Amino acid sequence: MAKKPGIPKGTRDFGPMEVAKRNYIFNTIKAKFETFGFQPIETPSFENSETLMGKYGDEGDRLIFKILNSGDFLGKVNDEIYAEKDAQKLTSKISEKALRYDLTVPFARYVVQHQNEIEFPFKRYQIQPVWRADRPQKGRFREFYQCDADVVGSKSLWQEVEFVQLYDAVFTALRLKGVTIKINNRKILSGIAEVIGAHDKLIDFTVALDKLDKIGEEKVKEEMLGKGIPQEGIDKLQPLFSLSGTFEEQVAVLGEILNTSEEGKKGIEELQFIDNAITELGLQTAKLQLDVTLARGLNYYTGAIFEVSAPKGVAMGSIGGGGRYDDLTGIFGLKDVSGVGISFGLDRIYLVLEELDLFPPTITENIKVLFINFGEAEGLACLKAIKELRKQGVAAEMYPDTAKMKKQMNFANKREVPFVVMVGESELNSKTYTLKDMATGEQQTIFLEELVGRLK
Amino acid sequence: MAKKPGIPKGTRDFGPMEVAKRNYIFNTIKAKFETFGFQPIETPSFENSETLMGKYGDEGDRLIFKILNSGDFLGKVNDEIYAEKDAQKLTSKISEKALRYDLTVPFARYVVQHQNEIEFPFKRYQIQPVWRADRPQKGRFREFYQCDADVVGSKSLWQEVEFVQLYDAVFTALRLKGVTIKINNRKILSGIAEVIGAHDKLIDFTVALDKLDKIGEEKVKEEMLGKGIPQEGIDKLQPLFSLSGTFEEQVAVLGEILNTSEEGKKGIEELQFIDNAITELGLQTAKLQLDVTLARGLNYYTGAIFEVSAPKGVAMGSIGGGGRYDDLTGIFGLKDVSGVGISFGLDRIYLVLEELDLFPPTITENIKVLFINFGEAEGLACLKAIKELRKQGVAAEMYPDTAKMKKQMNFANKREVPFVVMVGESELNSKTYTLKDMATGEQQTIFLEELVGRLK
Repeated sequence: MAKKPGIPKGTRDFGPMEVAKRNYIFNTIKAKFETFGFQPIETPSFENSETLMGKYGDEGDRLIFKILNSGDFLGKVNDEIYAEKDAQKLTSKISEKALRYDLTVPFARYVVQHQNEIEFPFKRYQIQPVWRADRPQKGRFREFYQCDADVVGSKSLWQEVEFVQLYDAVFTALRLKGVTIKINNRKILSGIAEVIGAHDKLIDFTVALDKLDKIGEEKVKEEMLGKGIPQEGIDKLQPLFSLSGTFEEQVAVLGEILNTSEEGKKGIEELQFIDNAITELGLQTAKLQLDVTLARGLNYYTGAIFEVSAPKGVAMGSIGGGGRYDDLTGIFGLKDVSGVGISFGLDRIYLVLEELDLFPPTITENIKVLFINFGEAEGLACLKAIKELRKQGVAAEMYPDTAKMKKQMNFANKREVPFVVMVGESELNSKTYTLKDMATGEQQTIFLEELVGRLK
Repeated sequence: MAKKPGIPKGTRDFGPMEVAKRNYIFNTIKAKFETFGFQPIETPSFENSETLMGKYGDEGDRLIFKILNSGDFLGKVNDEIYAEKDAQKLTSKISEKALRYDLTVPFARYVVQHQNEIEFPFKRYQIQPVWRADRPQKGRFREFYQCDADVVGSKSLWQEVEFVQLYDAVFTALRLKGVTIKINNRKILSGIAEVIGAHDKLIDFTVALDKLDKIGEEKVKEEMLGKGIPQEGIDKLQPLFSLSGTFEEQVAVLGEILNTSEEGKKGIEELQFIDNAITELGLQTAKLQLDVTLARGLNYYTGAIFEVSAPKGVAMGSIGGGGRYDDLTGIFGLKDVSGVGISFGLDRIYLVLEELDLFPPTITENIKVLFINFGEAEGLACLKAIKELRKQGVAAEMYPDTAKMKKQMNFANKREVPFVVMVGESELNSKTYTLKDMATGEQQTIFLEELVGRLK
């Protein structure tokens, strides 16, 4: 085989250092999930197609990776249908399983399937890969991890408060100071649409509003007008375009706009509850900010909407997001189970930590000490020491071959091993070990006990 | 939707306690891998089909899950081929990717692809799921984890010694005492076949010998005779059937049988080296045993062959296995890279630990304390305490709704929460917390500082 092997586009190999850094992020998030009372679950990588299809819109259906049935998958396909040679029609005949597209739908399926074993409210977290047949591009992959925490079975707003705290706790633990947790509420967006006479144009309205940052006030207004939102209504929005001040002050402005909408007022109440609690409790390093333009996942969020942006100066999209969805499990026949959850964007968090040089220098996948191999008897003496070191949790190994000293030292240098131990004839006779500090070059010949003590 | 949702056969959901127990095993294995100097890598869940197909035999090819191409996957299929309606022929036209079937082939691909970034010898470990379209049955799944450690780029037998130590270290850490690490060597099997005139019947010979435990000496001899192995040769095997005594004594018997085979003698030398080193170094709780009938994966192993069996009295197949393969990366065009590796069978280890009740009672996915929710002001006081507890790493949560006391206490009982905290009006006024030990029923009203101290 002349061609060097490769991997499918949009997928990645992770080498030792990358795995170590990714695990640092995963472990930090997991530790916080657990102190917040979330319990881990895992679901299969592939689900029955009927579980996934139709849950993410047409575009989602297209991006789901389907698994070909095993064996003679054409055997049961009706000749007439086969003759049409229509890929879309054929798919459901030759494929019954599909790779998970996100963690939310499998979680909803899990809750319904295991409803009798679960104590509600159920706080679960899940950290697993998902797959999407998206066009690969910078920072977008076909296989990537999602880190989700959700609570189902309670409508209490304390959950929203806790999720704000959870974001703060995780990013503080990652030493990523100054992230902004943006919050909005579906009810506020609905209320505004109602007030300006665009009740039936909620999506058009929010899509236009969402562009405020990018295209500016005038263009947003033009777009709204173009979508048939009346000028009179747009005029009512004027205070929104210059919303500023504290959370409380902004909420006051919103309150005036929304004073004729019951739903809008409910949304404001919810925002106020969350802001009051967070003000009382305080955040460690993050900031909570109202963002009326925030509308992500509007099609399924019913209450709070969250999005986290990286600290100022780091050009990166959102590094987390979430919200409340009042009917998570309805798609699987279990009504009235409210859920709220958030997600962490692992790949982007990784890039931000890398850019700001925030990975702790102690992250390593490396051994602490390499034993140079001078021969059979020497090797055995080395392994005796290595055995003791490993018992103490010290990562140690011996160069496996009795190669030339230079080659072995080269290996130690390239692997950036902090210590090297040499056992030659004189050490063998005196039952000692010569320890070399690779940073200082210092050497010491010592007994096993001291060696273990030094390296522990 | 009336039907309760399910998952594909051969796959599993893991609830919180199962995830916690599985992670206990993973983390124990990982910690030992790392002190032994193995570095983690991860490869994509799916590979290009050409990377996997043809590497596991026809049966393997059949069991590989193929992923359907996205979009109009029939568009490029030639009409003539399509008209044949032949599933096997069509597969390569409509599927270019496949789910990983094991970790060894992707590792070989990784080594070849990244050969210029890797320092050899390269000790890697990999703990990831694999997928096989096998008929599901008790203990056999279509998605399961493999835990592999391999070294590539060295022929040194010290590696084999280390793998015996590694098995011992992991099973000792899992408190699974008394496992047997069985060892054999491909060269010994080849040597015997040579000596008895069955050089060209190595597979037939080993398949028959492998059945010794199950069908007994006479039937094994009959089978060999039936496969055309001469009676004279079978007579030479006689000492094998009653092989007993110490490792050394058994090796001596083998030595006599093999004294005319160069390859056989090499195999004996290798066994002796490993046994001598292990005798010198000692094992903590495992036992190393020669098993001449051991032939797993004979088609690719070229030297040592390992298999680990659970302690006596536990009816379970092998819980680990491995061996040396002298040409791991040859399939991808990189010659002369010798490898040796072992694998841990997670699912079986889980069952054994469960059966012997060896999971530490400290494994938990649970919170330590639940705060009862009596209302808004009380809730806020609770969250203030919870915030401090979580900062100290104590897993704590508040019942989200102000439900009836009985309902909240029921929840605490069902979740088996060890402590409950109540904050009512009087606690609110005196800034205290009432802590209840759920095991003893004891209650104490204390200040925040003491509460944190008690629960830390």
